Amino acid sequence: MTAVDALPSLSQVRDAAARIAAHAVVTPVWRSATLDALAGAELHFKCENLQRGGAFKFRGACNAVWSLDQAMAARGVVTHSSGNHGNALAMAAATRGIPAHVVVPEGAVQAKLDAIVRAGGIVHRCAPTQAAREAMAAQVQAQTGGVLVHPYADTQVMAGQGTAVLELLRQAPALDAVITPVGGGGLAAGTAVAAHGLDPALALFGAEPQGADDAARSLAQGQRIDSMAPDTLCDGLRALVGPSNLDALRTHRVEVITVSDAETIAAMRLLWQELKQVVEVSSATVLAAVLKRRDAFAGRRVGLVLTGGNVDLDALPW
Amino acid sequence: MTAVDALPSLSQVRDAAARIAAHAVVTPVWRSATLDALAGAELHFKCENLQRGGAFKFRGACNAVWSLDQAMAARGVVTHSSGNHGNALAMAAATRGIPAHVVVPEGAVQAKLDAIVRAGGIVHRCAPTQAAREAMAAQVQAQTGGVLVHPYADTQVMAGQGTAVLELLRQAPALDAVITPVGGGGLAAGTAVAAHGLDPALALFGAEPQGADDAARSLAQGQRIDSMAPDTLCDGLRALVGPSNLDALRTHRVEVITVSDAETIAAMRLLWQELKQVVEVSSATVLAAVLKRRDAFAGRRVGLVLTGGNVDLDALPW
Repeated sequence: MTAVDALPSLSQVRDAAARIAAHAVVTPVWRSATLDALAGAELHFKCENLQRGGAFKFRGACNAVWSLDQAMAARGVVTHSSGNHGNALAMAAATRGIPAHVVVPEGAVQAKLDAIVRAGGIVHRCAPTQAAREAMAAQVQAQTGGVLVHPYADTQVMAGQGTAVLELLRQAPALDAVITPVGGGGLAAGTAVAAHGLDPALALFGAEPQGADDAARSLAQGQRIDSMAPDTLCDGLRALVGPSNLDALRTHRVEVITVSDAETIAAMRLLWQELKQVVEVSSATVLAAVLKRRDAFAGRRVGLVLTGGNVDLDALPW
Repeated sequence: MTAVDALPSLSQVRDAAARIAAHAVVTPVWRSATLDALAGAELHFKCENLQRGGAFKFRGACNAVWSLDQAMAARGVVTHSSGNHGNALAMAAATRGIPAHVVVPEGAVQAKLDAIVRAGGIVHRCAPTQAAREAMAAQVQAQTGGVLVHPYADTQVMAGQGTAVLELLRQAPALDAVITPVGGGGLAAGTAVAAHGLDPALALFGAEPQGADDAARSLAQGQRIDSMAPDTLCDGLRALVGPSNLDALRTHRVEVITVSDAETIAAMRLLWQELKQVVEVSSATVLAAVLKRRDAFAGRRVGLVLTGGNVDLDALPW
């Protein structure tokens, strides 16, 4: 991967959908009369918590793994991740029978480490710094010849993430707007390309925690913020938005709405109570944003991507 | 209602399915490779936590409400319940535009009371004893001429509950066994009639908390236990099994497996983690029973009814 991987095209997203079809779940879209009434809008929730591995990340990882030619694939894939992407890549590699090397910093959550091992991933521990992670990943790449699969800047990863909205627009036709969380921007970029490729009139939104609002601020100041100490409970949304990812947000006029952790936690509770879905806190930013900006969504048909359901049940945030 | 309402026939269950079709949700059936591996069996979970009102109870209440002739319906329906049935009856009555009187004892959970009111139910408070509940219900009936809809002994309620397994057997064909929780036995009786009506070779199981194991003991001793102080966290399964309901269990050779609350709570966590579904503790008895009695289910295709998802998120049992 380079720091400026190209954005995928709609046709690459369509190719991704065909490529992952045998492995990924076509997740359901659920509705709730109570949540519609609260929002004053018609809400269609795309339940990626029910995706394989419990998060949308499997889509991108699976597409990246199956995009490799035979010779490259045989050398395996490499990533550094303490979260859902590492697990997703291990699961995706297993579908092709190739090795997945996952660099995991000391201090990562044991449950996530266990999940990576259970999925067949080869774990490499390193010190908990960005530099140590990158150095270890480079070392593993050099030793194995494996291909680095970046969690959000990779073209095929973005294309894979875009397949969720392809499904959503088929399952809930005639949407007026779509909203996804924004972290590194892999899902947001893939969604923008795919959604506007199919329907340029769709209004696109992103939801970002106030404590990791680099995308909102980068868009506002016209220049990418390249360092920030995130301060949010939304562990899936702490990454800085990637350069290509930010380009996609700008080109596709994605409006980023920032929400406080308190607003997100309240929305998370609502999703558990009303949809009966276990979703992780990062997922709930989209509902928090819709409830915060009722004016922007009033009376509209809105698709919301619930990104994952990997939660520590012993440490719920309320 | 009388204490010995007749069991429904398969054709009454089919009529119920047609009657409620416009109002109830055809709930999905979900699977999990992880849970299959744990059980050594093929598990098909019928997700009634996604039913209207968050529990299967809506099926029976809706069938009861729409079974009434016009004149009777106009006088409304009456029940006493501090749980899901009261809410379900209020919601069902609203679909027909008739009044629902729900007698709720002092000390009931405020959230459940709020839900009944939100659904349009007319709440009558009484002292928290069985005698006070019955007296108040009788008084409301006398005043209004309304029809009492018993939560599990009513024929049309049992028929309505049986519609869940009709769907399940269509969604997951060629099942070897079906298991439901057993409380008052409305769901267990409706399931037995419907399941054996379609496929007499199906093995039928019930799951009951050890602290409310009156059905298991009644079957073992050949005589219905008519008093017991329940001691279980499974608030949906504290009722004594009804006489007709017990007959259904006996006639259809339903094997009742008892599980401890600790086993049920562990199973509940597994359901939240692996299926990403918010299910209430009573629902988890079925998975607890399958994991406890692996020998009885090994290698078989098993349907499990997850009965509801109405949980107090501030008081999770782990």
